[in-house]
Amino acid sequence: MKRIGVFTSGGDAPGMNAAIRAVVRTGTAHGLEVIGIRRGYAGMIEGDFVPLGPRDVANTLQRGGTILLTARSAEFKTPEGRAKAAENLRRAGLDGLVCIGGDGSYRGALKLLEEHHIPVVGAPGTIDNDLYGTDFTIGFDTAVNTALDAIDRIRDTAASHERVFFIEVMGRHAGFIALEVGIAGGAEVIVLPEDPLPASVCAEVISQSSAKGKRSSIVVVAEGGYEGGAEALARDVKACSGIEARVTVLGHIQRGGSPTAIDRVLASRLGAGCVDALLSGASGVAVGEVDGEIRLTPFREAVERRKDINRKKYELAKVLAL
Amino acid sequence: MKRIGVFTSGGDAPGMNAAIRAVVRTGTAHGLEVIGIRRGYAGMIEGDFVPLGPRDVANTLQRGGTILLTARSAEFKTPEGRAKAAENLRRAGLDGLVCIGGDGSYRGALKLLEEHHIPVVGAPGTIDNDLYGTDFTIGFDTAVNTALDAIDRIRDTAASHERVFFIEVMGRHAGFIALEVGIAGGAEVIVLPEDPLPASVCAEVISQSSAKGKRSSIVVVAEGGYEGGAEALARDVKACSGIEARVTVLGHIQRGGSPTAIDRVLASRLGAGCVDALLSGASGVAVGEVDGEIRLTPFREAVERRKDINRKKYELAKVLAL
Amino acid sequence: MKRIGVFTSGGDAPGMNAAIRAVVRTGTAHGLEVIGIRRGYAGMIEGDFVPLGPRDVANTLQRGGTILLTARSAEFKTPEGRAKAAENLRRAGLDGLVCIGGDGSYRGALKLLEEHHIPVVGAPGTIDNDLYGTDFTIGFDTAVNTALDAIDRIRDTAASHERVFFIEVMGRHAGFIALEVGIAGGAEVIVLPEDPLPASVCAEVISQSSAKGKRSSIVVVAEGGYEGGAEALARDVKACSGIEARVTVLGHIQRGGSPTAIDRVLASRLGAGCVDALLSGASGVAVGEVDGEIRLTPFREAVERRKDINRKKYELAKVLAL
Amino acid sequence: MKRIGVFTSGGDAPGMNAAIRAVVRTGTAHGLEVIGIRRGYAGMIEGDFVPLGPRDVANTLQRGGTILLTARSAEFKTPEGRAKAAENLRRAGLDGLVCIGGDGSYRGALKLLEEHHIPVVGAPGTIDNDLYGTDFTIGFDTAVNTALDAIDRIRDTAASHERVFFIEVMGRHAGFIALEVGIAGGAEVIVLPEDPLPASVCAEVISQSSAKGKRSSIVVVAEGGYEGGAEALARDVKACSGIEARVTVLGHIQRGGSPTAIDRVLASRLGAGCVDALLSGASGVAVGEVDGEIRLTPFREAVERRKDINRKKYELAKVLAL
Repeated sequence: MKRIGVFTSGGDAPGMNAAIRAVVRTGTAHGLEVIGIRRGYAGMIEGDFVPLGPRDVANTLQRGGTILLTARSAEFKTPEGRAKAAENLRRAGLDGLVCIGGDGSYRGALKLLEEHHIPVVGAPGTIDNDLYGTDFTIGFDTAVNTALDAIDRIRDTAASHERVFFIEVMGRHAGFIALEVGIAGGAEVIVLPEDPLPASVCAEVISQSSAKGKRSSIVVVAEGGYEGGAEALARDVKACSGIEARVTVLGHIQRGGSPTAIDRVLASRLGAGCVDALLSGASGVAVGEVDGEIRLTPFREAVERRKDINRKKYELAKVLAL
Repeated sequence: MKRIGVFTSGGDAPGMNAAIRAVVRTGTAHGLEVIGIRRGYAGMIEGDFVPLGPRDVANTLQRGGTILLTARSAEFKTPEGRAKAAENLRRAGLDGLVCIGGDGSYRGALKLLEEHHIPVVGAPGTIDNDLYGTDFTIGFDTAVNTALDAIDRIRDTAASHERVFFIEVMGRHAGFIALEVGIAGGAEVIVLPEDPLPASVCAEVISQSSAKGKRSSIVVVAEGGYEGGAEALARDVKACSGIEARVTVLGHIQRGGSPTAIDRVLASRLGAGCVDALLSGASGVAVGEVDGEIRLTPFREAVERRKDINRKKYELAKVLAL
Repeated sequence: MKRIGVFTSGGDAPGMNAAIRAVVRTGTAHGLEVIGIRRGYAGMIEGDFVPLGPRDVANTLQRGGTILLTARSAEFKTPEGRAKAAENLRRAGLDGLVCIGGDGSYRGALKLLEEHHIPVVGAPGTIDNDLYGTDFTIGFDTAVNTALDAIDRIRDTAASHERVFFIEVMGRHAGFIALEVGIAGGAEVIVLPEDPLPASVCAEVISQSSAKGKRSSIVVVAEGGYEGGAEALARDVKACSGIEARVTVLGHIQRGGSPTAIDRVLASRLGAGCVDALLSGASGVAVGEVDGEIRLTPFREAVERRKDINRKKYELAKVLAL
Repeated sequence: MKRIGVFTSGGDAPGMNAAIRAVVRTGTAHGLEVIGIRRGYAGMIEGDFVPLGPRDVANTLQRGGTILLTARSAEFKTPEGRAKAAENLRRAGLDGLVCIGGDGSYRGALKLLEEHHIPVVGAPGTIDNDLYGTDFTIGFDTAVNTALDAIDRIRDTAASHERVFFIEVMGRHAGFIALEVGIAGGAEVIVLPEDPLPASVCAEVISQSSAKGKRSSIVVVAEGGYEGGAEALARDVKACSGIEARVTVLGHIQRGGSPTAIDRVLASRLGAGCVDALLSGASGVAVGEVDGEIRLTPFREAVERRKDINRKKYELAKVLAL
């Protein structure tokens, strides 16, 4: 193995640059040339490649987003598109690939491997933390802290006005962010896709909180925790109980920002782990961190197996809202 | 004058606690007793009063929200409600009042003065900066920096995905927040209530930005800058130009958080200025800071005169978006 | 068990309030009365006790420091002092104790148990992360992120002036903070108590960095990584190589601030875990989190066994500094 | 005027990049070519020039430090050095210069103008706010907020341990930072170069604070407020009163970081103002903002006249510490 490519794909996540930097520097340290592929699979098809040396990734560790850009590619979903991408990779002499992204990115990488036999490994870059085979994904801790900062701010207003607030955080299919910020933000109710809550139950808990002497309440709602999101839930809670609430949808602010220490270190380890994996001959695997150790998981398992939220934490959240 | 009351009213703003603290400590230093009135005019009617000494406001300077709480009061809008409030104030022996809030709060204070002859002065506590008679209102600088932090985060994603983002900030009638964060956040377009922009012009500027080689664009929209807000504008821009954009409505996060240095110092000066004003026999006036000096403005003028945005800054914003 | 006490001891750490809150709310949920003991062992001797209900710990989750205060107590180090403390605890009817603190605090708790048979469990509250039996201590993640923010700021200046900076972080006997912020901050050199580095080697690495085209360098030094700290190391580096550097000692800023999400969730889990442990009849144990699970470790083991830094991370740091 | 140069000089300050960006974009909008001179006067002598177009300064607005770097130059202090610099400027066809820096930078610019008749204007880029002719310098607001964040953190520890802390902030000759963060941070004592305080008086105020029931105290000390700084003051306070205190020297963290909204807007206005000034034929002047308006001040006046701190604020600080 002499030359490898690295790319980011799917939604951007804080820490992706730290992972790219780790791939470049670890690769270089092992005598590899590293080529950056810009704009994910789209750039692979267009041959948008750029050589990356250790100095090219200087001063990127602390930056949000991804210096290699990211994009969707409809063309890559076709066999012709993938053939074109593979052809470009071969022409560029790339012996292996590091894919940094979420489950869609892994699926693309798997196709490339299966159809064109290009060795590829992946690092989990997504704020949602919904990938099997790693305790945490790159960007998750930053997203949680960004959402938490927003909730702390809103609590100032909620407490001052003695009001109820519904706050929607990211998480269409998984409640990792909602659960973590719910506990950390002291939410009275947490609404997760993993345990959907009828509006009537939500209203009931708010009423009980009020009866216990709480003069304001925060309800954290994962995007996918209620059909229609926090807006719909607030409307339905009002309909069934008369409780008035304000709604804030945090949205895209959760994606950006300088990564936290955890995300920078995790991304660095996983980026380096990808290079190690490629060099050891591995392919078709995602590199994750489980119980503090680097672990490889086949792509198929990583995308097909479901990572569950920590049920004990979820139960604890209810006790802490006492 | 021996005993004064202080209350916060209207939407909460970061720095309100710094103002309360300054009223309490300056008042005490001048030999006054200071009484906190909780939940604004509602608490005035209910007689929800609490004595405040220098130690009671310890460790509040850095807190967002208001320790005296704030609420709406429909009853205060009736002559009977105000009579009840005035009776409570008299019974509590309050010789003067400090009102911390926005224009609605000032109007209430003015009624109290006109109908019941209770000396009252005001400090401008609102994030919107839309009060005449002061260069900046308490909470404005914090709100601007909170919105700016959000925009910086979103720019990471906008740049990584090469996308257009519309970001809605607070400001129903005034574009102060939008203008300031627009310049500070490097927005390609800023949409203000003071200079409403048709969607077609907005689309045109985005297209030009793209033609100049910018691969992402940020449009900052004040709530009142477009009928229906940022969502409507994005929809109309798409309809007339095909430009796809993401929308984020920052909402209530702009109200909370620990106040910036500017807001703490401003609030401290204005709180102290209120006590000085009352002691000098002033009444029916708002205390502001203009060109670095404390200045008194009659309530009527403060609420009726319109403070315009800085047009030179607005023009500059367009040049800087080059 | 009907009534338990909770106290914080040793240096304050962000998240201690989250732990206290969890003890109070979990305890109450289990039908226990919870008594707060103020100022650690000093308050225990003075009988400075205060009952804590669920509402008393409202709005404390996000606060740095400890609402129960902390202090040193010379008297508690004497058998007489401890007897007095035990007598107070008995008189107050406390059937069990939760101690939140570091190794010194655990040693005190152990004495109390051994000499006076008072059931006591502990939660690791210290920014240093140097306690065996838990992957992370309460406050560590916040301290790391605070130090990281400082390093990011200093890098702006280092890069602009093309200078070398030595930054001293906390850690007299353990390099956990230094290693984590060193990797996350992209340090060219990390100096740890676990692997002391002669000044000449440090100078050599800086020279190599410069030869590789790096125009600025950051050296992160744990307090105990070099005799005399960062100041001494910078002086010795200059003496042996002529390299000029600036020094910043981060100091006490690393202790305070609103806890990160990780620290709030960890503290909540461990606080609740302490109550569970007491109720299950455990005593003389520290409650930690290992590989995501709550684990009990005898106090003696927690204070006597050494937790080593992650050597793989340390090696990785050198590669990443390429 | 067809081509202008821009450079940063002296200590870096947050907002310098915003000023550079404004010079480039405003200059380009006026049909000028803009050339960046790297590393200040040193780069001028070495001819280290780089053309800057609008896209070259994209995504720099939010970055701390200076993309044009800064350095000291002993050679520029000699007539020969300056002649060499002037020769390079002429050869590059530069018709005017924008200097972003502090008083030393202005003095250098003045020499260049007087000896070599090169039109030059300046923007005040220094965190110290000690330049006459502008209410605030670029970087001051960011430095104040950074120091304030540090003080807020330390107060958590001070309050938890009931201790006295001395915190040294930047300001060798001027107390602007100390005064602002002293008020905003709720300091019990503020020690300024403008009003040096004997240790005995400092001790006396701390004792009084304690007698009033304050259980912790914060003393903010400007670098130049006491011979030997905060360390020396703490030692002398202990010697004369027995009061034990901890000391933290904030140091270089005050220089870096992403600029605040105020600093980005100010820097943008002043950068644009520099281009306007050059185009209007002005030279040898510093561009400042006074009472919200752009104002030009001759360099000589800017460096020779002393800007005093706001004495009313200083008096207020004492009342607020009640």
